Amino acid sequence: MNRIGKLQNSIKAQQSFLCVGLDPDLNRLPQGISRTPEGVVDFCREIVNSTIDHCAAYKLNFAFFEALGEDGWRILRKCRELIPDSHYVIADAKRGDIGNTANKYAHAIFNVLDFDAVTISGYMGRDSVDPFLEFEDRTVILLALTSNPGSADFQLKKLASGRCVYEDVIKTSVSWAGPDRLMYVVGATHSYVFKEIRKWIPDHFLLVPGVGAQGGSLQNVVKFGRGKSDINLLINSSRGIIYASENEDFAQAAKIAASSIQDQMKNLIS
Amino acid sequence: MNRIGKLQNSIKAQQSFLCVGLDPDLNRLPQGISRTPEGVVDFCREIVNSTIDHCAAYKLNFAFFEALGEDGWRILRKCRELIPDSHYVIADAKRGDIGNTANKYAHAIFNVLDFDAVTISGYMGRDSVDPFLEFEDRTVILLALTSNPGSADFQLKKLASGRCVYEDVIKTSVSWAGPDRLMYVVGATHSYVFKEIRKWIPDHFLLVPGVGAQGGSLQNVVKFGRGKSDINLLINSSRGIIYASENEDFAQAAKIAASSIQDQMKNLIS
Repeated sequence: MNRIGKLQNSIKAQQSFLCVGLDPDLNRLPQGISRTPEGVVDFCREIVNSTIDHCAAYKLNFAFFEALGEDGWRILRKCRELIPDSHYVIADAKRGDIGNTANKYAHAIFNVLDFDAVTISGYMGRDSVDPFLEFEDRTVILLALTSNPGSADFQLKKLASGRCVYEDVIKTSVSWAGPDRLMYVVGATHSYVFKEIRKWIPDHFLLVPGVGAQGGSLQNVVKFGRGKSDINLLINSSRGIIYASENEDFAQAAKIAASSIQDQMKNLIS
Repeated sequence: MNRIGKLQNSIKAQQSFLCVGLDPDLNRLPQGISRTPEGVVDFCREIVNSTIDHCAAYKLNFAFFEALGEDGWRILRKCRELIPDSHYVIADAKRGDIGNTANKYAHAIFNVLDFDAVTISGYMGRDSVDPFLEFEDRTVILLALTSNPGSADFQLKKLASGRCVYEDVIKTSVSWAGPDRLMYVVGATHSYVFKEIRKWIPDHFLLVPGVGAQGGSLQNVVKFGRGKSDINLLINSSRGIIYASENEDFAQAAKIAASSIQDQMKNLIS
């Protein structure tokens, strides 16, 4: 099955379009978890087990695994394998390089680690994205408008054509593949632009970081950002869930945080 | 010592501003080398030993190590450790993410693996680059104008201000750090723009891919791209050197290829 179909099924089954971001920082592991690479697996296992009924997807942030050094990729694989087939799994790697190099990244992420989707920076253009799109059942999640203050530096600059840079990224790339294979990152901190974006891409999924820790509002994102015929949003929350408590009750606290978002989402879906 | 100083010393000592790109593809390892992760180390050792007197730097392309799966980071570390302190070592990782994530990438690349420099995609803006710049002795190598055809998709688009996007990346980021900490990627396939770029940044090093396999001319790059007071170019060649022969004489062939470029460079330096 195409992995976007898997995501849609997961959203229906869980009545949630929440993506839990796994950013396991060795220095922030809660009490009762050893601050070692194996501790990271224990931590992620507890988080996955306690949130699995409340979210549709997980996003593994590669930086936090790479920071573990040689153990990182072994731990990354173990954590990826914690997630059952029912849930959509995103490699948050933000890769972007020329064709023969992009081929290798795609092989690592789709073949070796079997992720459903990968985040990609499109600065280098179409031939840096195509090697990922060659995996026809997977999803490329292209950075459009990110949630951080630095998004103003380049993404929001106006082109001579009248488009903003991020707008041009969307409008240019939309011809590269359909909504069954392409998704965009749009930060919740820019909720005022969702209405505009939905005119250009009514049917694509948007991956939305920045709800919670970064201050974006779920209600506004859904109000202005939902797709034409379906919700077609995947809202990511990382720190607000996985570090909901620094004590031994962290898994229970994560469950409560995810469940609370799910409750809001249930109302918004219907 | 600041690592740009190290690079300048290496260029003087070797009379070469060649960077050898290590893109070790398991499927292209030459005869006599086993097509295993350990074979990658053997291959890189032979390439480094045979080219060390002819180049100033090495660039390790992370994708080719990540494609090895769990072994990748162990092999990456081993290959990085093959390179002596005399030579400048670049992590070609093209990372780019928000602050707390960028911190982790910077830790992995500078602390754990002790690279001198890292390639960064600046699409997410200043706060995605700053965590790398916090390592004051290291170098951030920002993607400006890349050598691939896809560079036309976004980098060459004209902004309302009259600048091209890549020009804006350079002119905006130049205030973030000096030439002792910031370098730019400019592809050799765009040699006509080097003259213009040197008006904006006469003193920064440029990392120049695309000479050789991708068709750029060394003479043109040096003619139009050299710095005001020094050469300040680092020309990368990967496939043209490391795959100069697919037979057991690959190390000798790599030496000849690197030495031939060094000979041209000696003339151009003087």
